[in-house]
Amino acid sequence: MLEKEQVLDALRDVIDPELRRSIVDLGMVREIDIHDTRVVVTIALTVPNCPLRDEIARDAGQAVDALASDLDVEIVLTAMTDEERERMREKLHGKSQQQNNSPAGNLNRVKTVIAVMSGKGGVGKSTVAAMVAVGLRRQGLRVGVLDSDITGPSIPKLFGVQEPPTMSPLGIMPPQTPMGIKIMSINLMLEDEAQAVIWRGPMIASAINQFWNDVFWGDLDALIVDMPPGTSDAALTVMQNLPVTGIILVTSPQDLAGMVVRKAAHMAEHLNTPLIGVVENMSYVVCPHCGERYTLFGTGDSKAMAEAFSTRFLGEIGIDPQMAELGDQGAIETYDSQDFAELTAVVRELVENAPAPVPAAQK
Amino acid sequence: MLEKEQVLDALRDVIDPELRRSIVDLGMVREIDIHDTRVVVTIALTVPNCPLRDEIARDAGQAVDALASDLDVEIVLTAMTDEERERMREKLHGKSQQQNNSPAGNLNRVKTVIAVMSGKGGVGKSTVAAMVAVGLRRQGLRVGVLDSDITGPSIPKLFGVQEPPTMSPLGIMPPQTPMGIKIMSINLMLEDEAQAVIWRGPMIASAINQFWNDVFWGDLDALIVDMPPGTSDAALTVMQNLPVTGIILVTSPQDLAGMVVRKAAHMAEHLNTPLIGVVENMSYVVCPHCGERYTLFGTGDSKAMAEAFSTRFLGEIGIDPQMAELGDQGAIETYDSQDFAELTAVVRELVENAPAPVPAAQK
Repeated sequence: MLEKEQVLDALRDVIDPELRRSIVDLGMVREIDIHDTRVVVTIALTVPNCPLRDEIARDAGQAVDALASDLDVEIVLTAMTDEERERMREKLHGKSQQQNNSPAGNLNRVKTVIAVMSGKGGVGKSTVAAMVAVGLRRQGLRVGVLDSDITGPSIPKLFGVQEPPTMSPLGIMPPQTPMGIKIMSINLMLEDEAQAVIWRGPMIASAINQFWNDVFWGDLDALIVDMPPGTSDAALTVMQNLPVTGIILVTSPQDLAGMVVRKAAHMAEHLNTPLIGVVENMSYVVCPHCGERYTLFGTGDSKAMAEAFSTRFLGEIGIDPQMAELGDQGAIETYDSQDFAELTAVVRELVENAPAPVPAAQK
Repeated sequence: MLEKEQVLDALRDVIDPELRRSIVDLGMVREIDIHDTRVVVTIALTVPNCPLRDEIARDAGQAVDALASDLDVEIVLTAMTDEERERMREKLHGKSQQQNNSPAGNLNRVKTVIAVMSGKGGVGKSTVAAMVAVGLRRQGLRVGVLDSDITGPSIPKLFGVQEPPTMSPLGIMPPQTPMGIKIMSINLMLEDEAQAVIWRGPMIASAINQFWNDVFWGDLDALIVDMPPGTSDAALTVMQNLPVTGIILVTSPQDLAGMVVRKAAHMAEHLNTPLIGVVENMSYVVCPHCGERYTLFGTGDSKAMAEAFSTRFLGEIGIDPQMAELGDQGAIETYDSQDFAELTAVVRELVENAPAPVPAAQK
């Protein structure tokens, strides 16, 4: 006759797809009843309406079924009590959670944090952030996008994601794009996307900290942080509280933009945050009628800017009406352009050379 | 023989060009010595190296000279003591200065405060703000521009103004553009225009309050306030602490921009700040090669947005490489385009219908 231990062992291979841990380790297996060939396993889900309930039940059923050929297996799903949840949280986070501000302190294993910044608004930070994420994802990397622009968030719209984040005992679960990029933005939490978030700096800072500390990003090769314009609270919070691997500076050929972008570069220097390089957006436009390529905002000095800050120039990106249109349709993931190739390759290299993150719980 | 009173009366007509008050009212005439036909007038300048010292001395000399045909007039220039300055300040400001937050409480007589806002960065707020100021100035109005974008200021560069503001006993004196528009911006105070201003919200708010309360704007028909992107500290401070007559919303045809601009409109509603209208920038571009007019960022719904917020649609503005170029050269004042005609006319009408401001000192 089957022993409870055998069933438990079999269930060790069942992984909660969200938390990426064995349901046994998570303490989700509450009861195993065996009467001859009938096996009833009671699994306590971390939240009552876990969207992955069917998947977990199916996997658990199959794991137990495989133990013998004639079993009558039933999986009963219920939800964890507050106590069980608390116990799981303690077990997973370890005691260091409260003092630890970095993903190493919780369950997130984020290899690199890439901030996309400009200082200036409207030069295409969000589009560049999105395209870097898409480029890395196309190469199979695990990618997230943290939208730190609290008063003017663009990321959900670009990716066409509207579903609100769900809560799990391990944190806020970020929704995913069709391609599998995890995103978090204040706009996912608003009833109406055009609702204004009228907050002073401390609230902005608090929201960004929450997006970093309280979101369950899980294992990521790269977390792309889309920064708002300016060198005030949001930028300070990202540079001071997140372990930023490097900053991609986005500029445009206009001198006026260049001046403000240099302010952002000076801020990065001042806060000892490394620059990855400078990319120039809106460099040119191709007339849809005559096919002529021409500049709209002058020919800037972005290469000189990169040199002045001892960093790389990562290419010119043209204004493409198709890109704007796909962005407006929430289909930025279907866009492709060679203009992003160098930028993506450089970030990819950075990810490959970064050390693997070690969460405190595993130390 | 000439009496001191006669000399003093003559000096009443001498106006300090900076403070626009009679030097007698300002308490600048410290001594009048008369010996037969020789008249020595000692004038205490408000600051030791007043750039207008020669002008004041000349005007005073001429005014006394005119009293009789045979006078030997000498004007001795010195500087006010701290006590004299304090007395002048008290006299001019009245006792209400400390409690009063509006220009009515000091020497400024600002008829209308027009905020140019977008929520979104890079849609051309600063250019629109500059062109409204230029349009009004061309019609002879007295105009100032307050750059409330502390971390990404564009106004000085657009107008080509680099000289720092000077200090006068009545406040910070804003420099003027060639056309005579007074401007104030944090960038006028930085040694290097690309220096970053890494301040959290309270410092941003404090700078904007200072630009409003401590700058000697004098008599203005319109003060145009160029707002930064976002609906956080800067926008809150302007809407809460300045007597904003109305807001011009600048949007672009991109849905993405429209969404963020609607956030700004919601903020204005929320804070009971009236909207003047919506203007759409970057609406179209004209190919320099084939002359074809086409859209670059889609065809937006800016008219619908204006309707939704029960305000006026104030026209479409095209992308004009010449405008960008003149802006980069600091020569925005030499630019002209019919695209701004309606916008300027509407603001002009608003200025004409506004009640005349009454400073507390004159009540």
